[in-house]
Amino acid sequence: MGLRVPVVNAPMGGVAGGRMAAAVTAAGGLGMIGMGSAGSAAALRRELPHTASLGGRFGIGLVDWVVAAEPELLEVAIAAAPTLIAVSFGTDPSWIERVRANGIRTATQVYNATDARRAEDAGIDVLVARGAEGGGHGAVEMGTLPLLDAVLDAVTVPVLAAGGIGSPASLAAVLAAGAGGAWLGTHLAACSESSLPEASRRAMIAADGTDTIATTAFDVAMRLPWPTRFPARVLRNDFAARWTGHEDALRTDKAAQAALAAAIAADDPRTAPVDAGQGVGRITAIAPVAQVIDELCSGAAELLARGR
Amino acid sequence: MGLRVPVVNAPMGGVAGGRMAAAVTAAGGLGMIGMGSAGSAAALRRELPHTASLGGRFGIGLVDWVVAAEPELLEVAIAAAPTLIAVSFGTDPSWIERVRANGIRTATQVYNATDARRAEDAGIDVLVARGAEGGGHGAVEMGTLPLLDAVLDAVTVPVLAAGGIGSPASLAAVLAAGAGGAWLGTHLAACSESSLPEASRRAMIAADGTDTIATTAFDVAMRLPWPTRFPARVLRNDFAARWTGHEDALRTDKAAQAALAAAIAADDPRTAPVDAGQGVGRITAIAPVAQVIDELCSGAAELLARGR
Ligand SMILES: Cc1cc2nc3c(=O)[nH]c(=O)nc-3n(C[C@H](O)[C@H](O)[C@H](O)COP(=O)(O)O)c2cc1C
Ligand SMILES: Cc1cc2nc3c(=O)[nH]c(=O)nc-3n(C[C@H](O)[C@H](O)[C@H](O)COP(=O)(O)O)c2cc1C
Repeated sequence: MGLRVPVVNAPMGGVAGGRMAAAVTAAGGLGMIGMGSAGSAAALRRELPHTASLGGRFGIGLVDWVVAAEPELLEVAIAAAPTLIAVSFGTDPSWIERVRANGIRTATQVYNATDARRAEDAGIDVLVARGAEGGGHGAVEMGTLPLLDAVLDAVTVPVLAAGGIGSPASLAAVLAAGAGGAWLGTHLAACSESSLPEASRRAMIAADGTDTIATTAFDVAMRLPWPTRFPARVLRNDFAARWTGHEDALRTDKAAQAALAAAIAADDPRTAPVDAGQGVGRITAIAPVAQVIDELCSGAAELLARGR
Repeated sequence: MGLRVPVVNAPMGGVAGGRMAAAVTAAGGLGMIGMGSAGSAAALRRELPHTASLGGRFGIGLVDWVVAAEPELLEVAIAAAPTLIAVSFGTDPSWIERVRANGIRTATQVYNATDARRAEDAGIDVLVARGAEGGGHGAVEMGTLPLLDAVLDAVTVPVLAAGGIGSPASLAAVLAAGAGGAWLGTHLAACSESSLPEASRRAMIAADGTDTIATTAFDVAMRLPWPTRFPARVLRNDFAARWTGHEDALRTDKAAQAALAAAIAADDPRTAPVDAGQGVGRITAIAPVAQVIDELCSGAAELLARGR
């Protein structure tokens, strides 16, 4: 895709809006606008002005079941004429043809070699091999390293690596393995240009790589129809510790559901979910996207030059 | 340690005996004899003749609680004067001083940056950053890539990467990230020189990277005193599917325990545990250690040369 640096930001719902997308593209990568479970055609339209000056050098990432509920979301995305549209978390690949017919490249996240072959057969242009250590929603099946390896072995389309990449060393690692680039979520989520609320941001900075947990508890409490194959990796907080493994009781516990809704409204990360992968320990400050990407890429380039 | 290739075989109990250790050292790596939960001073003495001609260029790997039950095991290991002794799965680091006082280097497996700092403070010479995707026993805390990254950032001693490494691409990845080498279990477990029984070996060859599960069920049924922090990653078979998450019932189910014992004796991998990590999908045939290591290392070198 002619990028200056091998970085695509993950389309993070509520976190990666048009501002982040514009910053990532300006830094030489491909910036993505993320529409998550709260995404909509109207919300996407609000983000698009930030990317208007990019000449289409940005992407849009959608969630399959959100598009199914509001097909107009995909139409607005296509009409925006981005370089790349990603739809993840689905099983119906018919969107791929529809998007490609408009001259837009397609991507989706996969979790094993079988997923990857299926997406390639459906005509996908770029695969994102997303390991179990990644932040936000995703299948917990294989670690990034063996997954990337299995996917590279299974398909011929370009593969981006995702999950736990948050340092020059881990970026150098996936590039050496043969990834076309990295699809970075967590590592950019606390940047200045992200839409993450303040207290959540501080919780990410304070967290260590062992402080995350993959759970369906928040989605159950919020009655979001995420397929159970895709728990979310979040910072392990009081709510996650209390309810993970007890989702059935949570389903009918109105008080717990109300407490969660209040905590989300108040940006209280002791109860509200903060999506984060196992690379979260390497985030130490709020910094501009340009600086974070530059440090990551120049450090990785140095490591790779040493590797000869 | 002056190795020709950056490979150390994991000390796999019942799988990596003296024959495998000798083959790995002959291939330019460091061969390790593994004494697992069934290890003993007598069993170690039986393996040592295979490494007698190596001039000490081999290692021995022990399990902390097995050594605690039979301290003579550590004494036999020290008397064998290997290059490296590894003791894993413990919290008491006093063995490190004892081994170093005999001019032998020390290693241990760690699962997060805190573990790593603690082992470094206790005087360890080499750390093994062992990710959740690895085969056999180990903590399921972080994926290999973010773990390696966090450990390299936390300590100054050399770090070997372990967990899911089973291809030129994944070896190149960890070397590019800064690992001193790879500690390979699964990828060597099916080699000609391993002691793995025949049907288990075939099960490994047939398996895909998504066919593993981390479980304490087998250890509970066999009444092995593994700390619960360390489940074993095995091929997902009938027994694992039936009992994982139901270990309490298994504890008192004599029939299930007897069936497991019989299956182990009969080498029936539908019920018996076969330790394997998420790199298992890349094993396609039984081959000599020399060939497997050569393919791995020359492929990784090629990828790294390309990376400049
Ligand atoms: C805060 C946050 C929000 C996310 N939201 C979405 C989303 O809306 N759609 C999506 O496809 N993936 C989403 N993801 C997952 C990413 O696409 C990706 O799989 C993940 O970030 C990669 O792992 P990493 O976070 O360790 O970099 C999100 C991740 C994070 C951290
Ligand atoms: C068959 C097998 C047996 C193992 N036995 C032991 C053991 O006795 N002691 C030990 O420290 N680790 C043991 N391990 C774990 C390894 O030390 C190491 O953590 C693991 O193999 C690395 O991941 P990988 O299998 O994906 O290469 C074993 C692993 C396997 C696959």
